[in-house]
Amino acid sequence: MNKHKALKGAVAAFASVAALGAMAAPAYAADGTYSPNGKTVSELAKHGGAQRIASIGNEKAKNVILFLGDGMGDSEITVARDYLKGVNGHFEGLDAVGQPGALGDAKAGTGQYTTFSLGNGSKDSAVGKDGDGKLVANPNPGRITPVTDSSASGSSWATGTKTYNNAVDVDVYGNPQLNLFELAKASGKATGNVTTAEIQDATPAVLESHSTERSCYGPQGKTDGSSNDALKRCLANQLKENGGIGSISEQLLDTRADVTIGGGSKYFRQTVQGGEYKGKTVWEQAREMGFQTVENDPAAMNALQYKDNQPVLALMSDGNMPTKFNPSKATAKDPAKDANPTVCTPNADWLGNQGSSLKDMTKKALDLLNANPNGQKNGYFLQVEGASIDKQDHAGNACGQIGETDDFDQAIAYALKNVDLNNTLVIVTADHAHTSQILNAQPTYALSTVLKTADGENMVVSYGTAQDDSRDEDGGYNGGSMEHTGTQLRIAASGPGAQRVTGLTDQTDNFYTIAGALGLATSTEAQSALSADAEVKVNANDGAYTAEATGFNGDAVLSYELKDKATGKTLAASDSSTPVSGVRVKTAQTTGIALDGITEGGEYTLTVAGRQSGKTVSFDFQAPAQGSSANTKGNGGSKANGTIASGKAAQSTDRNALGTTGTAVLAIALAAALMAAVAMLIRTAKATRNEH
Amino acid sequence: MNKHKALKGAVAAFASVAALGAMAAPAYAADGTYSPNGKTVSELAKHGGAQRIASIGNEKAKNVILFLGDGMGDSEITVARDYLKGVNGHFEGLDAVGQPGALGDAKAGTGQYTTFSLGNGSKDSAVGKDGDGKLVANPNPGRITPVTDSSASGSSWATGTKTYNNAVDVDVYGNPQLNLFELAKASGKATGNVTTAEIQDATPAVLESHSTERSCYGPQGKTDGSSNDALKRCLANQLKENGGIGSISEQLLDTRADVTIGGGSKYFRQTVQGGEYKGKTVWEQAREMGFQTVENDPAAMNALQYKDNQPVLALMSDGNMPTKFNPSKATAKDPAKDANPTVCTPNADWLGNQGSSLKDMTKKALDLLNANPNGQKNGYFLQVEGASIDKQDHAGNACGQIGETDDFDQAIAYALKNVDLNNTLVIVTADHAHTSQILNAQPTYALSTVLKTADGENMVVSYGTAQDDSRDEDGGYNGGSMEHTGTQLRIAASGPGAQRVTGLTDQTDNFYTIAGALGLATSTEAQSALSADAEVKVNANDGAYTAEATGFNGDAVLSYELKDKATGKTLAASDSSTPVSGVRVKTAQTTGIALDGITEGGEYTLTVAGRQSGKTVSFDFQAPAQGSSANTKGNGGSKANGTIASGKAAQSTDRNALGTTGTAVLAIALAAALMAAVAMLIRTAKATRNEH
Repeated sequence: MNKHKALKGAVAAFASVAALGAMAAPAYAADGTYSPNGKTVSELAKHGGAQRIASIGNEKAKNVILFLGDGMGDSEITVARDYLKGVNGHFEGLDAVGQPGALGDAKAGTGQYTTFSLGNGSKDSAVGKDGDGKLVANPNPGRITPVTDSSASGSSWATGTKTYNNAVDVDVYGNPQLNLFELAKASGKATGNVTTAEIQDATPAVLESHSTERSCYGPQGKTDGSSNDALKRCLANQLKENGGIGSISEQLLDTRADVTIGGGSKYFRQTVQGGEYKGKTVWEQAREMGFQTVENDPAAMNALQYKDNQPVLALMSDGNMPTKFNPSKATAKDPAKDANPTVCTPNADWLGNQGSSLKDMTKKALDLLNANPNGQKNGYFLQVEGASIDKQDHAGNACGQIGETDDFDQAIAYALKNVDLNNTLVIVTADHAHTSQILNAQPTYALSTVLKTADGENMVVSYGTAQDDSRDEDGGYNGGSMEHTGTQLRIAASGPGAQRVTGLTDQTDNFYTIAGALGLATSTEAQSALSADAEVKVNANDGAYTAEATGFNGDAVLSYELKDKATGKTLAASDSSTPVSGVRVKTAQTTGIALDGITEGGEYTLTVAGRQSGKTVSFDFQAPAQGSSANTKGNGGSKANGTIASGKAAQSTDRNALGTTGTAVLAIALAAALMAAVAMLIRTAKATRNEH
Repeated sequence: MNKHKALKGAVAAFASVAALGAMAAPAYAADGTYSPNGKTVSELAKHGGAQRIASIGNEKAKNVILFLGDGMGDSEITVARDYLKGVNGHFEGLDAVGQPGALGDAKAGTGQYTTFSLGNGSKDSAVGKDGDGKLVANPNPGRITPVTDSSASGSSWATGTKTYNNAVDVDVYGNPQLNLFELAKASGKATGNVTTAEIQDATPAVLESHSTERSCYGPQGKTDGSSNDALKRCLANQLKENGGIGSISEQLLDTRADVTIGGGSKYFRQTVQGGEYKGKTVWEQAREMGFQTVENDPAAMNALQYKDNQPVLALMSDGNMPTKFNPSKATAKDPAKDANPTVCTPNADWLGNQGSSLKDMTKKALDLLNANPNGQKNGYFLQVEGASIDKQDHAGNACGQIGETDDFDQAIAYALKNVDLNNTLVIVTADHAHTSQILNAQPTYALSTVLKTADGENMVVSYGTAQDDSRDEDGGYNGGSMEHTGTQLRIAASGPGAQRVTGLTDQTDNFYTIAGALGLATSTEAQSALSADAEVKVNANDGAYTAEATGFNGDAVLSYELKDKATGKTLAASDSSTPVSGVRVKTAQTTGIALDGITEGGEYTLTVAGRQSGKTVSFDFQAPAQGSSANTKGNGGSKANGTIASGKAAQSTDRNALGTTGTAVLAIALAAALMAAVAMLIRTAKATRNEH
């Protein structure tokens, strides 16, 4: 009897959800067949192209918390459990998520997912260089990479799009892909981003920015501000001074998450190189933009309170945060290690000693999100990263990775005790597997550490994947990096929608799980539709003119063009040489565009287009003459002030499909133009949509 | 709001099941607290002592199929998938189990479990030796071993008891633990055991035997019959000639599974060294015991049909079966490997070419079980092992492990298309993780193979865990064994009860999942109760006397004592020096015990006790005088023939709790004796209970 039935109930029940993900090829064909399907790279590179479970629907959750253990493969979980709890012990938080019965009657699910990436297989390096040696977007997208880095991983769950190692929320062609924070903000939700790493590191960065290079940390690159290596670290065209959308740190401010807590404060000491805040430090820019800032001060972090329209930016260390345990050092085979196994010791420099453990930071984030009116009304999305599991695994540091797993577990346990799993989906997973392996005896080939576990037994943790022989004189680890591995990963979930993590999924499915639970726009069409109500106003302020774009919530980047109507000459325009050129959208806020070259009484055509959605606002306007009716009350100067024109989006007739080419075409359809003389100054007014 | 609720619905709903497992400490305490619980070794060593999910109940399934990929950790699964299907592909069988929607509306679950073992951490070696250098049961049980071997693993899921590496269904003290085949037979179910390994290898052996040493393959040890190394391979007291329960091969025949298909035929060419079949080969013994035998003949295997009371024993190769792909060889770092990646090639010697793939063998097993009246009426338990994933991983042979995973997947896919998932629980898992790791670039420390995958991309598979440096002149793998790793494992299930594999479980939980679904006895008490109806008859046959024990279905080993009532002298008795001394129970069949020293007219006391259950049958009888009424019609010789006495079990007042000491005490309670003169010859009669 052949019971390989066609899909019935499952598909029918979730048809509406499947429709949302219509761009993605479902893992199971409509006729119910289930056969191996190695797709082509170009298919995989599409938004949603690598999904395995498009046909499995979501349940709705008000809130989602994603706990992300960087590099926390099953081996790393087991290493830490065996050491800290004993082989039959369990983690209070990490192992409770997804465990039926462990969290009352919360729904629970566990599964595995695949983590490969696309591109040239390089890690943390340039994707390509042009003839002048400048970094350019991926010139060779037609490849599959078995082992992902953290940036391609993060981009996968943050956007649903498979991409190349080194990419931050851009596809293999360099096109920005909308991320969970942008979509959550478009939906009026509160957002939080917590990590023990530098906040510019790949995993937090995928919620804040779009960058063709993961190390484009700040406007001056990956420095403490004393130098400028941005051209080594960033695609030149992404830099503000070259008409680009800016570095990761700058985009973090544009993204304006409600809560951002992590490390990497030194990059905010860099000097902004272009745009409105040119010459100021990024910290100064943050404060001018209304952020509550904390720099390397746990007490101040713990004292933070929710304040309306004053998001929190607390960076607790110059770089990555110190680890919970002091490092151990993997060394060559030596019987003496068996006789004197290593016991990990606490690190005096760990910030948890000062009230800034990952649990402390998670508590603060939850308090702030719960106090936030948007969070209360619409829910929140919070990501919490245990970042240095990965970093210490790279370093062959067993104690380091174990301590970080412990810190991570405590943060999860805190959350489980303080959220309502009836309306909050909690997910625990990793971004890629890693190198450490548990053995009974020391290996000959690999380096290893012999640990004395909570059971009082020796356990060998082995590290053998470095590409360079980095042993020092003592045969110990000497800085060469142990490598990520390509093994499928564990994912666990408790709360509404936890069933979606069951079975074999792909990392990109996590985007659909999270976004679907929160009711965010997942398909390319639904995302484009978020810009349907886009509006642009032209404001005058003492002879300076600014376009103020709102409602481009289905876009990450805007292009614009200002033409003299009489001469047809372009007076000002965004750079469009790469997909990360142009104006960074401030989702659910007002995105300002300075318009140069306008003279009083002149007539102009302004076109502003969302480069992801293709939605275009274009209208003609006349700059008011001196002393015209555009003057507002209380601002009776001699120049025209206030909104002088505005336009609404029209559907482009030549919409540029997301993810197919590297350049967005400026649509030319013209909307009905509203001319001059609208008597409201909105230059400093609050945006009309959710600003948090 | 603290939502860390006490267990409610889940516990209440499954209270009756929890009661069955009352000996085991539940993972969650009665008050609902969930805290780390590293148990002591003595607690873990108890039957059910390492369970994590005792409180999660089973659904009932008529049939259970366990697909066991030996050494098939998540890394091995991903290696094979990436190579065979591409990174975004999926296995037709392996990835379909546990996948919601992939198998119609079948219930689905996936999770992870822990795999540690107990004992001294050695692998595949003696557990201990006495003063004379003889192997003896584990002298040092008080340890925890982070990485298990296949025998401790198999014992875990086959019996629910954690034990030491090298143990086959005995606990850390050497006490036999009832396994799934014994319990299934006691419940009237059909049983099948299929593997690509030698049938005496650990994974199949745990369904056939109890052995303190996993390499006690045959009565002459692990040889082809041309020599006798049994004293190197077996605990001396386990050997038949020393009054023990016999080797793995001999016990396989006593177990009498309905279907046994695998390799290892050469060990059946050994000569039996003691007991009823002394001097014959094990093959001869099998045929005399009524087995349908096939030796290295795929056509004959495929032609096998169900025949009443003629179980199938088909061993298709002398040793382990040839692999599907020719071997590759892991070698030291060399850029030439990147330029010329390996493509695996088919092995001409693979038995699948002759109709004996794992799929073919699985098909035959399912056909036989479905034709079996016990299977039809009561259901079946079938285990199918893809054995050489492990063996080729040990050998640093990427192509070998990939081909075996492919063979395994095809067997699963066949089963999924041919069983009813409404009444059949299909589980796919492994027994321990293994060494291979996926990298983007060749490592310096470890050996590696660069493969060209189905995507046309290079993938590096790395092997770095060998304890000895086994590189040959070319830097290639040279026979030193790459090692198992201790990472938690994937488990996937489809069908009734699939939800039990969700979350984090332990390998011993799998016993409770399988046995619970089939309604088998899981607790020590319920298992002991299976011997409640034990009965012993004394038969006479031309002056030879035999005790015939039936109904000892809660026991693996019997002890007996025959005393001269007049003198009080013991005439015959089982050896009781170790827990594997005594008489091997033929579960749900008749276990014969030759009684020597009886003379006509004499009066005797016979005591037979189940060494696991403590159930005892003891009665007095008188050997009939020559020509007495015990003579049966048609057998009118001069000697007494037929049943001359029988007794039924009484509860011992001094029951020997399972798993606490190494010796079973012979209980002395006497049942009412039935004396002489019962005129039925049952020497050759069919057993009254299920014999299959």
